[in-house]
Amino acid sequence: MAFINADVGESFHHWTMGQDQALMPWIDAVNIATGFHAGDPLTMETTLLDAHQQGLMIAAHPGYADLIGFGRRSLPFEPRKLAADLRYQLGAFKACADYCGAEVSYIKPHGALYHDLMHNPDIFCLLTEVVQSLFGHLPIMVASLPKTQAHPLDCLATQYQQPLLKEAFLDRHYLANGLLVPRNHTNALVETVEQLTTRWLHYQQTDCIQTLDQQDLPMPIDSWCLHGDQPHALAFAQALHPVRQAH
Amino acid sequence: MAFINADVGESFHHWTMGQDQALMPWIDAVNIATGFHAGDPLTMETTLLDAHQQGLMIAAHPGYADLIGFGRRSLPFEPRKLAADLRYQLGAFKACADYCGAEVSYIKPHGALYHDLMHNPDIFCLLTEVVQSLFGHLPIMVASLPKTQAHPLDCLATQYQQPLLKEAFLDRHYLANGLLVPRNHTNALVETVEQLTTRWLHYQQTDCIQTLDQQDLPMPIDSWCLHGDQPHALAFAQALHPVRQAH
Amino acid sequence: MAFINADVGESFHHWTMGQDQALMPWIDAVNIATGFHAGDPLTMETTLLDAHQQGLMIAAHPGYADLIGFGRRSLPFEPRKLAADLRYQLGAFKACADYCGAEVSYIKPHGALYHDLMHNPDIFCLLTEVVQSLFGHLPIMVASLPKTQAHPLDCLATQYQQPLLKEAFLDRHYLANGLLVPRNHTNALVETVEQLTTRWLHYQQTDCIQTLDQQDLPMPIDSWCLHGDQPHALAFAQALHPVRQAH
Amino acid sequence: MAFINADVGESFHHWTMGQDQALMPWIDAVNIATGFHAGDPLTMETTLLDAHQQGLMIAAHPGYADLIGFGRRSLPFEPRKLAADLRYQLGAFKACADYCGAEVSYIKPHGALYHDLMHNPDIFCLLTEVVQSLFGHLPIMVASLPKTQAHPLDCLATQYQQPLLKEAFLDRHYLANGLLVPRNHTNALVETVEQLTTRWLHYQQTDCIQTLDQQDLPMPIDSWCLHGDQPHALAFAQALHPVRQAH
Repeated sequence: MAFINADVGESFHHWTMGQDQALMPWIDAVNIATGFHAGDPLTMETTLLDAHQQGLMIAAHPGYADLIGFGRRSLPFEPRKLAADLRYQLGAFKACADYCGAEVSYIKPHGALYHDLMHNPDIFCLLTEVVQSLFGHLPIMVASLPKTQAHPLDCLATQYQQPLLKEAFLDRHYLANGLLVPRNHTNALVETVEQLTTRWLHYQQTDCIQTLDQQDLPMPIDSWCLHGDQPHALAFAQALHPVRQAH
Repeated sequence: MAFINADVGESFHHWTMGQDQALMPWIDAVNIATGFHAGDPLTMETTLLDAHQQGLMIAAHPGYADLIGFGRRSLPFEPRKLAADLRYQLGAFKACADYCGAEVSYIKPHGALYHDLMHNPDIFCLLTEVVQSLFGHLPIMVASLPKTQAHPLDCLATQYQQPLLKEAFLDRHYLANGLLVPRNHTNALVETVEQLTTRWLHYQQTDCIQTLDQQDLPMPIDSWCLHGDQPHALAFAQALHPVRQAH
Repeated sequence: MAFINADVGESFHHWTMGQDQALMPWIDAVNIATGFHAGDPLTMETTLLDAHQQGLMIAAHPGYADLIGFGRRSLPFEPRKLAADLRYQLGAFKACADYCGAEVSYIKPHGALYHDLMHNPDIFCLLTEVVQSLFGHLPIMVASLPKTQAHPLDCLATQYQQPLLKEAFLDRHYLANGLLVPRNHTNALVETVEQLTTRWLHYQQTDCIQTLDQQDLPMPIDSWCLHGDQPHALAFAQALHPVRQAH
Repeated sequence: MAFINADVGESFHHWTMGQDQALMPWIDAVNIATGFHAGDPLTMETTLLDAHQQGLMIAAHPGYADLIGFGRRSLPFEPRKLAADLRYQLGAFKACADYCGAEVSYIKPHGALYHDLMHNPDIFCLLTEVVQSLFGHLPIMVASLPKTQAHPLDCLATQYQQPLLKEAFLDRHYLANGLLVPRNHTNALVETVEQLTTRWLHYQQTDCIQTLDQQDLPMPIDSWCLHGDQPHALAFAQALHPVRQAH
């Protein structure tokens, strides 16, 4: 059964973001910001400790060095700079996880980095090399695509012996082509607990995501992402919990 | 014989500082900035590679999270924040050194951190704990003091089984009380190559630093620091090299 | 009657802080962060526009260049650097206020700058000179003290023909010596709406603040500060509004 | 006769860039960084004072909020954010120039902003609106193009009654199509003092730039830019000075 993940540790010094503490009991895995697009050393350490004490799966969530843009802006690709930025963040994260006695379960790239590597194999390879040199063959989490499409990273991953975890978004609607409904569209977000649990149950029974126009989209899903910054994030996680327990 | 160390890797993205490449052939050890007061991930990685290829001893040079003040401003001591900041920097550095195949020989705290831990045992203990959890009993470099004074860190270091390396400044004049002549004083800096080599030779023969008023100050010295940002840094290192070879 | 002020505009790019929009209808004046300890250019501009449209008095709220410490850490005093930092922030704020058609009513220093200038006349003079060169004799807001004590800034202010606005804290308890109960003390904060309105009414009738041990502290008060980051800030402002209207 | 301009004030706190003091006596105008891609408040103020005391024409040199990329990376266009960033920088600069008693002669956008507004009229209009609201109809400096091509900003500038200053690069070679030889090309840079003065004299006599393949490119030039970060910048400016005096 696909596990539930959410981004946490995105507070920045005196600025709080998200409701990490409240959310953690209801999910399975946390992606912890590593300080370049969000988070800071103490936030990272505190979040790691909290998550580890609650027995959650832990992921590093590195992003571009772009605090102003929250890592959501695509930046010009400078390979050596990006490699050094990723090694720096992930090395810092690893040291912190070791200190907390926490095991790192996977790496999930953030924001524009997450999107860019779907289209630019050089970025995926660069991330893979940095991850493998630090963590060995630890999985990297990427967006899943419908089974009808070849996933652009499958070949590379095989070539690098790099395990992938493929995730889908439980709180976002999909189009029939497998893309998310754009955020500025009125129907981008799943709005109610009922919709959410229906989507989840539908996938359990069919291995398909139900698209906005009620089609069945077959999709391999290792994990569901809940966006911690959505207004209903906590309510969604809480409502889903008993449903998942019952399966 | 005391080895020569200098701070390097202090450039910041498009801003160059120091003349690292020129200096490296003439010294024994480099203290590489770890990105919180100076340096950046790519500068750190490039500097580490250069130093390793030249066979130099390599140290991490962590500082306060204070780019504006170049790590030279004493900041309020917040233990958990400082521990997280140090673990983050040193974890990043370790990952980078491992990647470069370079061994880390010691840790040298920078600027205000270097000074503050001489007076605040809590800061020294905190640094020691972070260093030991990452690097085991790797030496920490601190300022040496005249043999006539008890060094404030000797007891703590013994208690923590923490090796210390004690350094003195070859390009700065000392007062009879063992303190450096303050930087704003006209005689703060050693000005000529002759003065520098004389100082070095004098110490070789006597185990004493000659103070500004020509007294002999007995001092244990594991390493001599040359300030890379002094105008004569390169000339000093070059002039000293054959003198040291001859001993 | 003393007007009510609160700090706003403290969000930072993607990080939201405070509940500025909700608070504004219930207060008289806003102190808008100018980007060095909190805020950013777009947040500052948006907040200025909102406040101006709601007819509030508007103040610039400059602080030390210390995002990590939220401007609450006292930093070494470097006069030329501080003057340049203040001129930069206040010049930017003035340009933005002019663009919005908003008049600036006063300047309120933030955090450690606010505290430091009470004890260091050089800092007060430096701020005064920067303010006067940009805004003429615009008032500077400082902490009020009991009438029984000479205010450390009165003489200087007279000398510089610099008007002061003196504020007290409606949501913080005072000691008999005129100092605030420290934040880590259990009774630091006013906890209920009833306490708050009682304090306000008591001052209206007596020109005295009631201290934690029920003494009357005579104090000149031009303005009351409500801390926007207190949990009850909005409830306090809303509850106080009809009470003030009735007077 | 076209005046000579150079970018200055690009040092960043403890990091020095360029050789502003040495260069100033040999040029006519300085473009001073305003702190978002380079420079800092004290550097800006010091540079403004120096330039004003030497009687140079003074320009504000604003850029994208991108310290890591030195303002040379094109960033996604967010109109309100960019407008606020520009107003903030230029307002700060104006306050500082007023304080120094210096007149601002023009605005020169930096790096990627300079390039992006040539292709995106929305960016040019946005900059124009910010400049006009702060400085009235102060000229904006942009890249010149050969007379054979319509300049993409001429119409807009007329529409906004916005004066333009058009500059060319004296130390960079041009292609026959009016573009600069790319920086990574071996012949990108003018290498010798002789080449530089020849280029300058040729333009004086012909109103044409001599391209790399010895063609004559007619081009309107209000100002020549010398790149302060080129190795020969100072030698170039010094060599050109007597040649210009003689005309």
